[in-house]
Amino acid sequence: MIKISFPDSSVREYDSGITGLEIASQISHGLAKEAVAVTVNGELWDITRPITSDAAIKFHKFEDSEGKHAFWHSSAHLMAEALEDIYPGTRFGIGPAIENGFYYDVDPGNGAVITEADLPKIEEKMHELARLNSPYIRQEISKKDVLEYYAQKKDEYKLELINELEDGTITIYKHGNFTDLCRGPHLPDTGRIKAIKLLSLAGAYWRGDEKRKQLTRIYGITFPKKQMLDDYMAMLEQAKSRDHRKIGKELELFTFSQKVGQGLPLWLPKGAMLRERLENFLRTIQVKYGYLPVITPHIGQKELYVTSGHWEKYGKDSFKPIQTPAEGEEFLLKPMNCPHHCEIYKSKPRSYKELPVRYAEFGTVYRYEQSGELHGLTRVRGFTQDDAHIFCRPDQLKDEFKKVIDIVFAVFKAFDFQDFTTQISLRDPDNKEKYIGSDENWIKAEKAIIEATEEKGMNAVVVTGEAAFYGPKLDFMVKDALGRSWQLGTIQVDYNLPERFDMEYVGSDDQRHRPVMIHRAPFGSMERFIAVLIEHTAGKFPLWLTPEQVIILPISEKYHVYAEKVLNFLNNCDIRTLIDSRNEKIGKKIRDSELKRIPYLLVVGEKEEAEGTVSVRRQGEGDKGSFKLDDFKDMIIKEVNRQTDLIVD
Amino acid sequence: MIKISFPDSSVREYDSGITGLEIASQISHGLAKEAVAVTVNGELWDITRPITSDAAIKFHKFEDSEGKHAFWHSSAHLMAEALEDIYPGTRFGIGPAIENGFYYDVDPGNGAVITEADLPKIEEKMHELARLNSPYIRQEISKKDVLEYYAQKKDEYKLELINELEDGTITIYKHGNFTDLCRGPHLPDTGRIKAIKLLSLAGAYWRGDEKRKQLTRIYGITFPKKQMLDDYMAMLEQAKSRDHRKIGKELELFTFSQKVGQGLPLWLPKGAMLRERLENFLRTIQVKYGYLPVITPHIGQKELYVTSGHWEKYGKDSFKPIQTPAEGEEFLLKPMNCPHHCEIYKSKPRSYKELPVRYAEFGTVYRYEQSGELHGLTRVRGFTQDDAHIFCRPDQLKDEFKKVIDIVFAVFKAFDFQDFTTQISLRDPDNKEKYIGSDENWIKAEKAIIEATEEKGMNAVVVTGEAAFYGPKLDFMVKDALGRSWQLGTIQVDYNLPERFDMEYVGSDDQRHRPVMIHRAPFGSMERFIAVLIEHTAGKFPLWLTPEQVIILPISEKYHVYAEKVLNFLNNCDIRTLIDSRNEKIGKKIRDSELKRIPYLLVVGEKEEAEGTVSVRRQGEGDKGSFKLDDFKDMIIKEVNRQTDLIVD
Repeated sequence: MIKISFPDSSVREYDSGITGLEIASQISHGLAKEAVAVTVNGELWDITRPITSDAAIKFHKFEDSEGKHAFWHSSAHLMAEALEDIYPGTRFGIGPAIENGFYYDVDPGNGAVITEADLPKIEEKMHELARLNSPYIRQEISKKDVLEYYAQKKDEYKLELINELEDGTITIYKHGNFTDLCRGPHLPDTGRIKAIKLLSLAGAYWRGDEKRKQLTRIYGITFPKKQMLDDYMAMLEQAKSRDHRKIGKELELFTFSQKVGQGLPLWLPKGAMLRERLENFLRTIQVKYGYLPVITPHIGQKELYVTSGHWEKYGKDSFKPIQTPAEGEEFLLKPMNCPHHCEIYKSKPRSYKELPVRYAEFGTVYRYEQSGELHGLTRVRGFTQDDAHIFCRPDQLKDEFKKVIDIVFAVFKAFDFQDFTTQISLRDPDNKEKYIGSDENWIKAEKAIIEATEEKGMNAVVVTGEAAFYGPKLDFMVKDALGRSWQLGTIQVDYNLPERFDMEYVGSDDQRHRPVMIHRAPFGSMERFIAVLIEHTAGKFPLWLTPEQVIILPISEKYHVYAEKVLNFLNNCDIRTLIDSRNEKIGKKIRDSELKRIPYLLVVGEKEEAEGTVSVRRQGEGDKGSFKLDDFKDMIIKEVNRQTDLIVD
Repeated sequence: MIKISFPDSSVREYDSGITGLEIASQISHGLAKEAVAVTVNGELWDITRPITSDAAIKFHKFEDSEGKHAFWHSSAHLMAEALEDIYPGTRFGIGPAIENGFYYDVDPGNGAVITEADLPKIEEKMHELARLNSPYIRQEISKKDVLEYYAQKKDEYKLELINELEDGTITIYKHGNFTDLCRGPHLPDTGRIKAIKLLSLAGAYWRGDEKRKQLTRIYGITFPKKQMLDDYMAMLEQAKSRDHRKIGKELELFTFSQKVGQGLPLWLPKGAMLRERLENFLRTIQVKYGYLPVITPHIGQKELYVTSGHWEKYGKDSFKPIQTPAEGEEFLLKPMNCPHHCEIYKSKPRSYKELPVRYAEFGTVYRYEQSGELHGLTRVRGFTQDDAHIFCRPDQLKDEFKKVIDIVFAVFKAFDFQDFTTQISLRDPDNKEKYIGSDENWIKAEKAIIEATEEKGMNAVVVTGEAAFYGPKLDFMVKDALGRSWQLGTIQVDYNLPERFDMEYVGSDDQRHRPVMIHRAPFGSMERFIAVLIEHTAGKFPLWLTPEQVIILPISEKYHVYAEKVLNFLNNCDIRTLIDSRNEKIGKKIRDSELKRIPYLLVVGEKEEAEGTVSVRRQGEGDKGSFKLDDFKDMIIKEVNRQTDLIVD
């Protein structure tokens, strides 16, 4: 008999060799049906794998990220089986589960080419094979045997991968007619896969090396229920219409230029002003919280980044050093602002009395990304962080952490991100040697973060072993209007840079001490935040932030003089207003303004001019009635103030 | 007989071979005494050189830049003579006149070393030689003879220089015992040099090449009158106390870090906030004038700068291209913002109706300067331009120019630069082929600039032949409080970039046309402007701009509570206030606050607390009496509003 303990701390005894699936069946029929993987003593397993010793276990359904991983990884195998059936002799690169679905890089061979038009056929074959209910069978075999198998199959890609593995036992998975080199875990059988959609095709260089063969990458997604796929496809459709690249172009917020370079956004006037408003919003909050602005250059000598450790981390595969006419002189585009802020901290001696010092900078940094990985504003090569570094005494850490949490909350509230989760990442207590900083400081810092989140009433998930080597951290993940998760905002404790830069302060004991450093960026970066905001709001920004707040729509040319009067009045009240003076029907003007996502539409004609009023329409809400000009102005100012008051207080 | 015409257009006849000095003598004794050089048909000549054909002439006194040049160049020769006398065998590099005085790079040879302590001795020898009244004698001799002369003298430096000259006649100048390779012109004799001061010593690599020998550079200045030297030395002393590097440090505005790199300022909080205020000030003006903000990255692909022509101009001797892991991909740190703005202009088709388009950006650019040429904030490797580019139709040029002039005037007025001159630089009408752009456009643009300055009542100096190859321009030179000239603000017409970027707009005739571009930067750069402002004001910034506006000085600890109350009240009114809560005598607190250049000092003690008042002192002006707190606040706000109203209207 073995002892199995469950997440609720209960313990039961079972015969050795029992599988997760069997245990689940004994618990409930529903669980057996829904469980797709099981964590056994911290390792993710097939639910059909026999358990032969005492273990702590946890079941995963499709809803868990672990469950999705097993589900989609199994689906990649299913697709491979279908491909082999349709394109005999297909050779296979890698086929992982990804954030949303899975892909497989394949070489159909024999001169075959897979196109979009082939996807339905492959899908159909997958369905057919899934219905066979073939079990996924795990086997451990020797490297030699696997090599032989793939040599026979003439799969040069798998051979290359296997040759790089250490000698010894290798796991493979079989199902139906297909065998794959794989760590697992997998579903019990293909029958679990009820809904299948192959999404797209792309070229992918073998091992990401553009000098090697280009394989065909096929992306797909699967679900245990048809309805889930329908919901997902509807969400994708929604997401497409909210794509920040599309809306950014429509609203003339930003653009890219071939000549300037990929991944380097050019902010157009409306986007630049929106960014300014966002920056000023955070500036106002930061002044309240005692942050001090600094401005630092976008380059630094290589030596600076050798000191900080960034050279080691970012030096390779990044923008290369900038040489100068002086021999040996080398600068780097800054990948991070922290080293510069450390140098400012060090520009004069510090006393415990002046801590904490909080340096804030909207600092533009440059990091090289492969051109294939660039995506709109979310994956760029240059971006502006709403960066700040807090240098404080260890005893101030908790308070500072709480203040940063307040700022992050203020940001979320202001932008209506109501649904978010938080994670505290601590060090692995069994591998203390992996981390820099004294044991005492780690204990203090982890305690400070946990207490800070508790005192703020947060229900943060605590994960051990996920801290950076230089300190524990707190991450915020928000859900947008489509239910997609975005990581926005990180608060990171750092013992490393104070050490590397030999930072000090004189304590009340007249001795030298090392300050603790906190990195934080509530927006993350202006680029990414604006992208998320566009997709979250579908480009309908809050009134205080939106590029144009009001558009005046004269019914005909006769009312242009009155429209101009209204325009001047509103612009003088700092209400961002424009006129649609085109010679178009009012209906078309209304439709066009709605498309431009302008919140307030003011129709003016004979009656309005005679009465000194405007007929107000709210974007997406229709007619709001007639307003005296002054009353309309008051309403707008009140709405803006309500939004920004909420922000600042 | 030859005909000599004068600047007042009068013409007189003289015998051929007459010298400028002789003509001057005939005009007046005073002119003969003061004239130090003469322009003959556009060439600068010795006043002792015979004129043998009809000529237009203009005399130069020491007060003119041409006169100073001849005076100081002659002084460099005089110093060389003195050095040769004291250090026989001295060899000579170059010895030019500079903006303020002259220098000579010398190698005293024989193991001799010249130190600061030797300067008085050299000065004395110069005085002695000057009193000999030796005439400067111009000679034209063959290259061969000059080479022979310097070979005999074993002067390897002069030999190197001569060898690089074209074959033919070379001019040399002799006076007393000294002969120098020189184009001239020079003074009639050494007796004109009445006041001499050797200022400093520096090491200077021969030909600026750090791999070659380091020579000793001796800086000096001379004057025709003792009083002028005294005034100059007093000004230097003043300038030293106003040095922006010194004041910038005292006021904690900016710092430099060895690790970040030379010439890359780090803006400390007070400096960053000051910069923000300056930027916002200009932003407010620019919004009024219809400018649109844009934000662009600090790098661009090399191709962008090949298109713009900057690669050809800045590519060599600058920051080298940034390579990436992708083969052939190269980026450059941007030396200018214009190419990025051109790409934004090109991001969509343009109609004549939407012009002018005015893109503004506080854009940080990077240009490599030799480390020896770096100086505080005035000569840096990275700086932020208050840049804007106006794209307009040719018929809009004059109006746009006038609007930019208005902005420059607003800036000068706001910062109390009352004394300034302007120069219009036109093309050389005899060398039209040197310039890009159609004849018609040049005529139109030059006319537009001249008329714009006239209509603005400006008395601009018009100089032909000084335009850039791509367009005419208007420069502003301001005099600071010490009478030193700074170039601040340039307005530059550009036909080149519209051509190179193939920019277009569709005209009212439905045809494609080329827009004209205007570059402008009223501050020039934030770094340089702040440096000039510090030296102009000695760090006593106008109230609206200054980092700290008010300091509260409690007479003793007993009044700290009241002081805090005053502090909160003022800070809530957005008046930048702090407290000196040190346990010091009030006299010392007042002295320290004055040193910090804080405009208002509020002394609070028993009486003030009882009455709810503050005792006000104005920096540098002493006691202003007792004020109710509300009245003091009103006064400050009024003063700030008066200053900023003046700015914006």
